[in-house]
Amino acid sequence: MEGSEEKNSVSLEDLKLKMADFAKERDWDQFHSPRNLLLALVGEVGELSEIFQWKGEVPRGLPGWKEEEKQHLGEELSDVLLYLAGAQILLQAELSKVFQA
Amino acid sequence: MEGSEEKNSVSLEDLKLKMADFAKERDWDQFHSPRNLLLALVGEVGELSEIFQWKGEVPRGLPGWKEEEKQHLGEELSDVLLYLAGAQILLQAELSKVFQA
Amino acid sequence: MEGSEEKNSVSLEDLKLKMADFAKERDWDQFHSPRNLLLALVGEVGELSEIFQWKGEVPRGLPGWKEEEKQHLGEELSDVLLYLAGAQILLQAELSKVFQA
Amino acid sequence: MEGSEEKNSVSLEDLKLKMADFAKERDWDQFHSPRNLLLALVGEVGELSEIFQWKGEVPRGLPGWKEEEKQHLGEELSDVLLYLAGAQILLQAELSKVFQA
Repeated sequence: MEGSEEKNSVSLEDLKLKMADFAKERDWDQFHSPRNLLLALVGEVGELSEIFQWKGEVPRGLPGWKEEEKQHLGEELSDVLLYLAGAQILLQAELSKVFQA
Repeated sequence: MEGSEEKNSVSLEDLKLKMADFAKERDWDQFHSPRNLLLALVGEVGELSEIFQWKGEVPRGLPGWKEEEKQHLGEELSDVLLYLAGAQILLQAELSKVFQA
Repeated sequence: MEGSEEKNSVSLEDLKLKMADFAKERDWDQFHSPRNLLLALVGEVGELSEIFQWKGEVPRGLPGWKEEEKQHLGEELSDVLLYLAGAQILLQAELSKVFQA
Repeated sequence: MEGSEEKNSVSLEDLKLKMADFAKERDWDQFHSPRNLLLALVGEVGELSEIFQWKGEVPRGLPGWKEEEKQHLGEELSDVLLYLAGAQILLQAELSKVFQA
């Protein structure tokens, strides 16, 4: 439970650092291209969609889903978030809109 | 070469019949839901994107790609087309715009 | 009805020619980049998804949809198909798999 | 500059609360369906792709982009992030993977 709250307090800044490490460790030049990262994001959203593709409508909270299905889902959501954070670094874009309204 | 021309003369109607067979053979109820099929389409577009995600800019005609890479690509393009044809059946939508201009 | 059958007999080869004209008329260099076209395809699939995003489950055949909604849908499906045909040109990929099985 | 650091310390928990407010203010039942939200996410990723679709390769940091283009980009990235946070609420999924490694 404590672990869960810790996760929730992860900031966007943390995420960006995480992504920077991720790319640096691998010394992957491909991470330096915005369109590479964008296509990787599209790929991850595709994998997320595949989890839901043959299920018909799904109620919120996913009652009846197996633990490993939920875990797989969490991983795909994480991947989308990670590449989104990466895009933010490369694009030096501000995620301003969310926090104004 | 003849085979290739034959492929090219495949019509959208042929594709719809192909998709109908595909679904019927499997007796998959999931094919009867437009949003299932739409998410499957998104998933296939994601797989297509993954082929290109770490490649940087790619020249047309794909010089230097291995034969199996090209074949894999052809399969993903086919999958997108197949689900698109399926969507057309379920939605009973006309692909009119393309042919007017 | 006759018009509809005519549409259905449109072949993939016709589509490729259509797309080639479309690009040529505009003399758009951007059409010459596979990844440009791929991202355009992703964009069109996004527009298709937006039509369905707040609707909950949708029954096949779209009972109750207004004529203009159906027309809009047909246009988006057409756009996806058009860019898919364009991708096929640039990639010189064969849509073989669909027609074997 | 201070404002920018403030934004960066926004946590995933903040984002979830933001999304919950967003949905609650509008009393939109559609937000209660995971697949609605997923399709909305796909739609936003499509809009993000459209920004890059005809640009060819784009260098990191986006040199030469106009201020309004960058702002538009920031908005689209924010939209993706917002729907991703919404998906997380509905799915009660944990974004664990990112923070383990």
